[in-house]
Amino acid sequence: MAFVKSMLITFSVGGVCYMLSRGVGKDLGKREGYIIVSLVWIIFSIFGCLPYLFSGAIPSVTDAFFETMSGFTTTGSSILNNIEELPHGILFWRSITQWMGGMGIIVMFLAILPTLGIGGRELFLAEVPGFAPDKLAPRIKETARNLWGLYILFTFAETILLFVGGMNFFDAINHSLTTMATGGYSTKQASAGFFTSPYLQYVIIFFMFVAGTNFTLAYAMVTGKASKVFKDEEFRFYTLVVLLFTGIITVVLVVGEDFGLERAFRDGLFTVVSIITTTGYATADYLLWTPFLGMLVFVLFFVGGSAGSTGGGVKVVRILLLFKNSFYELKRLVHPNAVIPIRYNGHVVDQKTVTNILAFFVFYIIIFMMSSVLMSLWTPDIYSAFSAVATTLGNIGPGFGEIGPMDNFFHLPALAKWFLSFLMLLGRLELFTVLVLFSPAFWKH
Amino acid sequence: MAFVKSMLITFSVGGVCYMLSRGVGKDLGKREGYIIVSLVWIIFSIFGCLPYLFSGAIPSVTDAFFETMSGFTTTGSSILNNIEELPHGILFWRSITQWMGGMGIIVMFLAILPTLGIGGRELFLAEVPGFAPDKLAPRIKETARNLWGLYILFTFAETILLFVGGMNFFDAINHSLTTMATGGYSTKQASAGFFTSPYLQYVIIFFMFVAGTNFTLAYAMVTGKASKVFKDEEFRFYTLVVLLFTGIITVVLVVGEDFGLERAFRDGLFTVVSIITTTGYATADYLLWTPFLGMLVFVLFFVGGSAGSTGGGVKVVRILLLFKNSFYELKRLVHPNAVIPIRYNGHVVDQKTVTNILAFFVFYIIIFMMSSVLMSLWTPDIYSAFSAVATTLGNIGPGFGEIGPMDNFFHLPALAKWFLSFLMLLGRLELFTVLVLFSPAFWKH
Repeated sequence: MAFVKSMLITFSVGGVCYMLSRGVGKDLGKREGYIIVSLVWIIFSIFGCLPYLFSGAIPSVTDAFFETMSGFTTTGSSILNNIEELPHGILFWRSITQWMGGMGIIVMFLAILPTLGIGGRELFLAEVPGFAPDKLAPRIKETARNLWGLYILFTFAETILLFVGGMNFFDAINHSLTTMATGGYSTKQASAGFFTSPYLQYVIIFFMFVAGTNFTLAYAMVTGKASKVFKDEEFRFYTLVVLLFTGIITVVLVVGEDFGLERAFRDGLFTVVSIITTTGYATADYLLWTPFLGMLVFVLFFVGGSAGSTGGGVKVVRILLLFKNSFYELKRLVHPNAVIPIRYNGHVVDQKTVTNILAFFVFYIIIFMMSSVLMSLWTPDIYSAFSAVATTLGNIGPGFGEIGPMDNFFHLPALAKWFLSFLMLLGRLELFTVLVLFSPAFWKH
Repeated sequence: MAFVKSMLITFSVGGVCYMLSRGVGKDLGKREGYIIVSLVWIIFSIFGCLPYLFSGAIPSVTDAFFETMSGFTTTGSSILNNIEELPHGILFWRSITQWMGGMGIIVMFLAILPTLGIGGRELFLAEVPGFAPDKLAPRIKETARNLWGLYILFTFAETILLFVGGMNFFDAINHSLTTMATGGYSTKQASAGFFTSPYLQYVIIFFMFVAGTNFTLAYAMVTGKASKVFKDEEFRFYTLVVLLFTGIITVVLVVGEDFGLERAFRDGLFTVVSIITTTGYATADYLLWTPFLGMLVFVLFFVGGSAGSTGGGVKVVRILLLFKNSFYELKRLVHPNAVIPIRYNGHVVDQKTVTNILAFFVFYIIIFMMSSVLMSLWTPDIYSAFSAVATTLGNIGPGFGEIGPMDNFFHLPALAKWFLSFLMLLGRLELFTVLVLFSPAFWKH
């Protein structure tokens, strides 16, 4: 009944809006794109609360909004501490919010609705993470369809593999939905750590890794152009970071904590892939590791998935280009009169893109710092404040301190929850789509 | 005797080197400038250790090097925990290292030695913080002399004012030397907090603030061009940040901690000015404040003094231009075809400078993160690791956690001390001067 009520309300409001907007032009420019995308995400999170509220699963509006925004933005931070007691319908809806948000609500509509043809490109670019991805098809609509097709295919494949490994069908489908979205909601209070089977964990690791890869590359892989994948600089850097961090963690766990090699490798790999892809499933409690390993995990909070993947965060390609630009600057200091452009995947990156990435990074750090100051009003220590902001802005899920992987966000005050919900949206839409709405230049004509 | 021995060794080695280098060309380019400046700072720190070692004040080579590098780079982090027991000569030498490092060792030589005429400009630019400051005089030599003259004048003025306020002459001169250098070494174990007189604290605050101001502006002020000072964007931003942070801290201390208004204002102002100018004197123990205030202090760790001041850190002008560039980027998103340059003090900032500042900031964050990972091998928690790196890289002095304002660096392992010494040098020479030596392009001809 909760779902029926929610649907009735949503359809009624939608219907009224549709009536009111008939005859309004559909000529969408860049500016309209920014507004529509931001609004769609907020409105979805408002209506997405309804099933939680009507069913009584989450009685508080603040908590329900937090949980829904955390779902759509694929953050995965949760206020629930009785997950196993909730009805299956509610848990399934929770996973579905992540799955829809992962590939993108707008992209989904572009794929299925016929009316959004005009201006679709602007909406697409405002929502899809990273820069304009290589087109999979000449038209945005086909690109959106191909992306969603691939997404469904992977989700289906993971479900089967998890089911074969002994997970029941309900858990298998839910974990597949939230893995492919890099969301991290689980049907178990103990998160993915509930499933101790190495096979199941490796399956989840594999699909998290795929979900954090540019879907253009995944498409190339599936259509038999594997060489393209391994030539891609972002993919190589992404793989390198995963292997490097996993290697270090494995060695430290084996030498320092007397873990068996396979167990250390699996715990390390799972944690690294879960954090870098911003999924946020927990198997090992990294708060119990030595500070050195905790620090490595924290660094990964600032990397994120690949551009054009469902992962959040700063994105691998940006980190890569930031590194490149800084090292090129040393060259420029030695040869002050030479023009030394940055190359990426064999092409010169134009100055505008470089400036944009640098501005993004600076905004990210400024917002991270300022938000941490604000959050520290509501947390017992600086450490929890930093990690709450890093994990929501990066759409990851768990944090450090009192919001560690084995804990949740329930005890935070209401204001803090609203603020963190805003950060999730900011992070999911990659700052600019939302920030531009606050710039005076945007509203001047 | 410790000083006599140190001088004999230093002069002997210097004499031999001078003999060996006779006839070598003095044609210095940019590359030679980077090498010379980095080497001068390292060699000075090696010979600067000698008085500590010969006097037995600091028996360990590691500790002596740490204390000397912390002196010359005006960081002010200390390994001493028996400061009041040390002979006056040693304490004075400790303050002198900071005073020399504050205005710059190279700048001092440019001012007093006649032989460095050629190539002096390159050396000057590689050592002086910020960008090329407005010339105070047509020739570098005169500029260096004017800077040092002003520096001596301020140091003298502060000594008198402190002495008048009841400080003994020895403490007055030492605190003046380390205030003007934004160094922060004190002759008291309790740092400047030992002097509880409000008058003395306000005097120190005033001179810390001056030392964190661009000396070109201080020169304009002294020579009667005050209007130039208040029109300067960096100075206005610097003042604004100090007032804003002090205001917030004052309110929170009055409302939340029941401090009297004057006491709250003074503690807040002292802490803010001490941290933003990277002096690092402690009066209040900010670790005892609420997390919110601790967080505000931590944010200030990443600001630093003005360009052309003796303060370290990222520098106010860079932060200002980073903010400007990010907000201009929002404008650029709204008007993608318009060319929107950044203006600073009425002039357009060229793209090269903007890219350089952005690269500096990215390097700063990358080095901060990577060094924190390394430091966490030697600290009991993530928090202490972050703060040890932030405080040494920013040339501040005290940190958080186990290296808080009322604690010191003595108990860290030797490797950590060498690493932090390197970070101090990196920070003092503003990254590039040192980093460029590690770039392959530098060594290729």
